[in-house]
Amino acid sequence: MINERVMATYLIETPYTLEHAAAVMAGEQSTGTFVSVPGETAELKETYGAQVVSITELEPVHQPTLPGAKRLDTEQSGVYRRGEVVLSFPYHNFGPSIPNLLATVAGNLYELQEFSGLRLIDLKLPEVFMEKYLGPQFGIEGTRRLTKVYERPLIGTIIKPSIGLSLEDLRVLVLSLAQSGIDFIKDDELNANPPYAPLEARVKVVMEEIERVADKTGKKVMYAFNITGDIDELRENHDTVVKAGGNCVMVGINSIGYAGVAYLRNYSQVPIHGHRNQWGAMTRCPLLGMDFRVYQKLCRLAGVDHLHTNGINSKFYESNASVIRSVEECLTPMFGDDTVLPVLSSGQWAGSAIESYKTMKTKDLIHLAGGGIMAHPSGIEAGVNSMKQGWEAAMNGFSLEDYAKTHSELAHAIEKFSHGK
Amino acid sequence: MINERVMATYLIETPYTLEHAAAVMAGEQSTGTFVSVPGETAELKETYGAQVVSITELEPVHQPTLPGAKRLDTEQSGVYRRGEVVLSFPYHNFGPSIPNLLATVAGNLYELQEFSGLRLIDLKLPEVFMEKYLGPQFGIEGTRRLTKVYERPLIGTIIKPSIGLSLEDLRVLVLSLAQSGIDFIKDDELNANPPYAPLEARVKVVMEEIERVADKTGKKVMYAFNITGDIDELRENHDTVVKAGGNCVMVGINSIGYAGVAYLRNYSQVPIHGHRNQWGAMTRCPLLGMDFRVYQKLCRLAGVDHLHTNGINSKFYESNASVIRSVEECLTPMFGDDTVLPVLSSGQWAGSAIESYKTMKTKDLIHLAGGGIMAHPSGIEAGVNSMKQGWEAAMNGFSLEDYAKTHSELAHAIEKFSHGK
Repeated sequence: MINERVMATYLIETPYTLEHAAAVMAGEQSTGTFVSVPGETAELKETYGAQVVSITELEPVHQPTLPGAKRLDTEQSGVYRRGEVVLSFPYHNFGPSIPNLLATVAGNLYELQEFSGLRLIDLKLPEVFMEKYLGPQFGIEGTRRLTKVYERPLIGTIIKPSIGLSLEDLRVLVLSLAQSGIDFIKDDELNANPPYAPLEARVKVVMEEIERVADKTGKKVMYAFNITGDIDELRENHDTVVKAGGNCVMVGINSIGYAGVAYLRNYSQVPIHGHRNQWGAMTRCPLLGMDFRVYQKLCRLAGVDHLHTNGINSKFYESNASVIRSVEECLTPMFGDDTVLPVLSSGQWAGSAIESYKTMKTKDLIHLAGGGIMAHPSGIEAGVNSMKQGWEAAMNGFSLEDYAKTHSELAHAIEKFSHGK
Repeated sequence: MINERVMATYLIETPYTLEHAAAVMAGEQSTGTFVSVPGETAELKETYGAQVVSITELEPVHQPTLPGAKRLDTEQSGVYRRGEVVLSFPYHNFGPSIPNLLATVAGNLYELQEFSGLRLIDLKLPEVFMEKYLGPQFGIEGTRRLTKVYERPLIGTIIKPSIGLSLEDLRVLVLSLAQSGIDFIKDDELNANPPYAPLEARVKVVMEEIERVADKTGKKVMYAFNITGDIDELRENHDTVVKAGGNCVMVGINSIGYAGVAYLRNYSQVPIHGHRNQWGAMTRCPLLGMDFRVYQKLCRLAGVDHLHTNGINSKFYESNASVIRSVEECLTPMFGDDTVLPVLSSGQWAGSAIESYKTMKTKDLIHLAGGGIMAHPSGIEAGVNSMKQGWEAAMNGFSLEDYAKTHSELAHAIEKFSHGK
């Protein structure tokens, strides 16, 4: 174990040479300081120092991406070199700890004046991390087992309006949704435990309707209750959900941190639905923060079972290519059976199935449509059916239009939602 | 309470008009979805909707700061408008919860394709947040009481090399530091609970030396042990420190989240030293993430007593003006007695005192020098004395050079460290 190392890959932009910049990164994040201090021996550097594994030069630029980079020596060329740098860190510097790993592989790097851009784009961890952290408890298989949906994506929706629904209106809506044959419902990330409709009261109302329908139909909808809150509340809220017969909890990962997720995972009895709101702040600048590739590894290690990835043609800035990559990454094993269900959402409707299946080549998805189900012209059940029909068409190689000829709910969805898509 | 609101100020950049963009923000983060859904009544919008309070137009630009902004209607002017937008959110949408507040005031905003830049630059919270969260327990006064340092900044250092010191070498170093008359020592953020020198063993060694010196001199150094870890470990580690007579704990705020800090604050018996590593990822792009003004409010609310702000002329990208503003913000009360001690560090030495005092106009600081103390040519004690002399000069209106004429430790510090500063 003493020889195991963490490999971290970065995209960097620097006014210095790539070699110098990489050496600064390695020094800053292991044994270095701004002047040599006593005790910084060659032996210590050998055992505890980060190493530069490789440097791949990319096309340079002439304008810095981020402000504040300074080159302090005399050579001011006006060129900002870009490259991919792989560093390796001794595992024994931090142990199997996500919080302390982050101080090393991210830490102060983003602030160094040697860089006009720095982004963590991949991370390879030794297996000892998986001995400490539990990873996904349910994942794809467990979620399918609980919902009894096997041959297609789970079709789901988000309670809308996001905020402000009275308990009475919530009850009516959940009843309609449960009766519609939908597989999955989630709270909006804006709606957790608001004073006007506390989580406990919402859980009661929702589970009464879900159980009532399940008793009749044998199909128990999976409902992801937004239990996001402070650490002690996570436990209380989880218990409230489980005691009421609930079968999923949702958290805003960035609101509670990887540490919060890992804490919840230690005692959660149901799948953890991971919402990634605030993620844009960490990733939207192409030369800052981190790639989803890294983020989803840390989320999975901490223990989420479902993870949001946006969807095709969403209302967000993200390109479809990036969404497709994200889905692929969620479905790529790290240490073994540790994949998670990607969650497609935002601007989704029945027609989204075609392009999603063609590009993502998987049915292991939760496909969420808010307006795309609830605003269907023939009502919620038709909305849900249109989504299922979209996936039938996609998985069986029909065009949307052909399949719609014999499936009126899909046809109505096309009429209402395809404009401008 | 039902009428209280949170005020959030944003810097935005958008291809749309500022009015349209602000309306999109308000809709996305309260009652809206991409098509109208049943139940989204005018009354609901009135009670639960976010409101646009003000819009201040700034100079537009012709290149988008961030990629992915799209204007979907026909008017493609190539202009990206910038402005400051103030939104107000009903407090009853989320209650007094930092995790759920974040889903609302940040949430998905960073990802919206209507924006080529979006940054949270201020946040005004109703007092009810201070009823839920405990805020700083010790702050400036409590830290001064524990260290008995009143008339000047606390002089401190960071254990270096950051990583790899054996317990034996650590013991020798801490003894030298404690004997030097230093006020404060902290672990490096890279060093928390590494397998080669576990926290418990480090605490034992460090506290033995600190107590031994305190018994002789009556001065007990404050040592901020890096207890960063997963949630359960925070409690264990805190208890390990306190049982050994330790008087401060340090956490990487971004490694454990505001929720982790609030959890620790609930039972901490000693000051919480807040390290902000990874903060650069949230703030270095000027049109993404958030300003330190917002960050430090959330950190203080969650309960840190000390907060890192960088220092003047540091090795980081941050401008001195920004560092000075950060210090001022830490020292500005929010709800009452809730200021925190700003921590200056990085590239600091005795001479930094002059410009720091002139610009920050306060002695309520922890002034950390790593190499600036440990690499002093006459040794650690001389390094500490040079820092004190630097502050004596600053606070009494002497120039560094004049004061150095009668203070040799300061003179030697100038010889060694002033080059290139």
